[in-house]
Amino acid sequence: MADTSRVLVDLHAATMAGADAPYGMIRDVAIAVADGRIAWVGAVDELPEPHRDLPRDSLGGRLVTPGLIDCHTHAVFGGDRAREFEMRLEGASYEEVARAGGGIVSTVRATRAASEDTLLKAALRRVDALIAEGVTMIEIKSGYGLDTDTELRMLRVARAIGEQRPIRVRTSFLGAHAVPAEYLGRADAYIDEVCIPALRAAHAEGLVDAVDGFCEGIAFSPAQIARVFDAAKDLGLPVKLHAEQLSNLGGAKLAASYGALSADHVEHLDAEGVRAMAGAGTVAVILPGAFYTLRETQAPPIDSFREQGVAMALATDLNPGSSPLNSLLLAMNMGCTLFRLTPEEALRGVTANAARALGLTDAGRIEQGQRADLAVWDIEHPAELAYRIGFNPLARRIFGGAPC
Amino acid sequence: MADTSRVLVDLHAATMAGADAPYGMIRDVAIAVADGRIAWVGAVDELPEPHRDLPRDSLGGRLVTPGLIDCHTHAVFGGDRAREFEMRLEGASYEEVARAGGGIVSTVRATRAASEDTLLKAALRRVDALIAEGVTMIEIKSGYGLDTDTELRMLRVARAIGEQRPIRVRTSFLGAHAVPAEYLGRADAYIDEVCIPALRAAHAEGLVDAVDGFCEGIAFSPAQIARVFDAAKDLGLPVKLHAEQLSNLGGAKLAASYGALSADHVEHLDAEGVRAMAGAGTVAVILPGAFYTLRETQAPPIDSFREQGVAMALATDLNPGSSPLNSLLLAMNMGCTLFRLTPEEALRGVTANAARALGLTDAGRIEQGQRADLAVWDIEHPAELAYRIGFNPLARRIFGGAPC
Ligand SMILES: [Zn+2]
Ligand SMILES: [Zn+2]
Repeated sequence: MADTSRVLVDLHAATMAGADAPYGMIRDVAIAVADGRIAWVGAVDELPEPHRDLPRDSLGGRLVTPGLIDCHTHAVFGGDRAREFEMRLEGASYEEVARAGGGIVSTVRATRAASEDTLLKAALRRVDALIAEGVTMIEIKSGYGLDTDTELRMLRVARAIGEQRPIRVRTSFLGAHAVPAEYLGRADAYIDEVCIPALRAAHAEGLVDAVDGFCEGIAFSPAQIARVFDAAKDLGLPVKLHAEQLSNLGGAKLAASYGALSADHVEHLDAEGVRAMAGAGTVAVILPGAFYTLRETQAPPIDSFREQGVAMALATDLNPGSSPLNSLLLAMNMGCTLFRLTPEEALRGVTANAARALGLTDAGRIEQGQRADLAVWDIEHPAELAYRIGFNPLARRIFGGAPC
Repeated sequence: MADTSRVLVDLHAATMAGADAPYGMIRDVAIAVADGRIAWVGAVDELPEPHRDLPRDSLGGRLVTPGLIDCHTHAVFGGDRAREFEMRLEGASYEEVARAGGGIVSTVRATRAASEDTLLKAALRRVDALIAEGVTMIEIKSGYGLDTDTELRMLRVARAIGEQRPIRVRTSFLGAHAVPAEYLGRADAYIDEVCIPALRAAHAEGLVDAVDGFCEGIAFSPAQIARVFDAAKDLGLPVKLHAEQLSNLGGAKLAASYGALSADHVEHLDAEGVRAMAGAGTVAVILPGAFYTLRETQAPPIDSFREQGVAMALATDLNPGSSPLNSLLLAMNMGCTLFRLTPEEALRGVTANAARALGLTDAGRIEQGQRADLAVWDIEHPAELAYRIGFNPLARRIFGGAPC
């Protein structure tokens, strides 16, 4: 790899670091980049010796933010659910959709039937669209295989995306996403016979960065999730959870008791759950795409998160059913419009707090020592990122210090 | 201009013409293009003599639709309102926003202060984003000048967009958009002294394709709109109206009595208004972007439109305040998700019915004699266009028969 060390000049930076100014904004700043990292941030005429002679790269007065981070996606899957979307709008009942082969089982079927190459090609289209809007890191879950082979195949595809594209990929094992047809009514057996062994196999292959689950009446109980989390703990893997999306089962509290990185969705979270998350430092991952698509009315307890100091991240939840949302900028707008996040909270939610939700300390802020993953925008004010709807003002992306 | 006559082959077409199949779908069809028009549509081995020897252009089995039409935009304006968006989310009241210079008056101020060149550059960024998703025709309104000079300048910019980009532009004069500060409390005087004279001046310069107004408590009464419509009638110009967005003043009925092309927004329309529109053949232009942004709860009477045979179009309403929505594909998804349109209704709403809303018969369908304005998509089924959120599957655009 060519040496990309240089000094970015003629820019304003929404660093998302420090508490001095909204957005950690520093105007007329220089950023020295060396060995793929941010080596120094400050006024250009104060550049220290080692960076003073590096080549300079003018960003033309543009605004720079940390590269965006989509910390909750299901970007690898087979098939699509457009026809199901249409049937529902034509008045078909859930039962009729199910009889026509719709619902998550259709995605499981299509994913099981798809080769690694087919899954990769389809996922790359989705990931490329995210890259085009300044995303430099993405989390990708398994969970449409629900058998060992397919779960591992999904995670291999996720890893391959990180090799084939200039984007950092973090994987989550989500075997506890749904009970597959062959285990209908036998969720406990599925957890013991498939989910946990598949987790161990995936971990042995180095495919797992974290372990996730779906705690809900239509999926798994807190007790079942706890067994998966125990297995994760044995393997030394951090956990996170789809919790309190459609009802309140106490999933977030359970997750917090395992020191979870995040609890995600959390629309129906109660005060006790908020306190548990605050105590454990568990990030609330807000997913307005599913709320919008499912036409939910119960918003997550944003004010309580603010009061209790629970960090909020924001993500697409990109998936073929409840959130075919392929734009993190749009998730920012939805977070503001539907949940009344401020634009600053939205940007923090896809940078600094998204990194936290992934357990990383080297991304999400513009600060010495961080990876040089940056997004350069044709905008005047960072609020514009959340304000516009369906408009992408990205000028350039910088990944590991290299323009791309 | 080079001769672009040729035959498009290896494609499926959602023609939006005929009633034989959903979407007017014809699989494995050929489209002969000559002199910028669709000369013939049919099976490739039935190509008639004059087209048989034209060069052939394979679309690789892709899906073709009519080029998309955004039939309601305010794409020309000065400034932006991102900071106002942020202030509101930070808890500022409307009064505080107004005191800080926000609201439509801020856009009027910025638009009046902007040169033709500044307005054009800013608008082209927005229009380019629409072109990139297959839009081949756009309607653009004046209405942020509210004085003769600026109203005409906005319309000149709209015309210039049509010269500088491969897109067809239809203009609407919207002098009756708001009462400017200098006429506060004197709306009637504004109509007589500014709006109608400006309309005549704009028409004399060939800048007006239709006349629009905003009939609402915060804007103009039906009686005031009627005076503007009378002036339009004198000039032989068709009318349309922003009606029943926030309350029911009977604007759509008034518009229908003038044979209006469309009544737009219409969330608060009553049964009498629906019947009047049906009788006059007035199109209902559905604008989910403003509904979403303003967090409205009253949906337009979609079922009544269906029952009474009122044609529905769908548009972005792209504007800096109530709908900074810069994606017509996203408007399609919002139409389905928020208003329960079917994906077919959504696609008809941005093709055949959008053309009707603009009073045009030569666009919006794939049919002999129509302009050869087409969009070519990397999708299998047309429902995918409305199903995905924030994803653009456009492969190619064809404008007046030419790829671009
Ligand atoms: Zn999810
Ligand atoms: Zn409008």
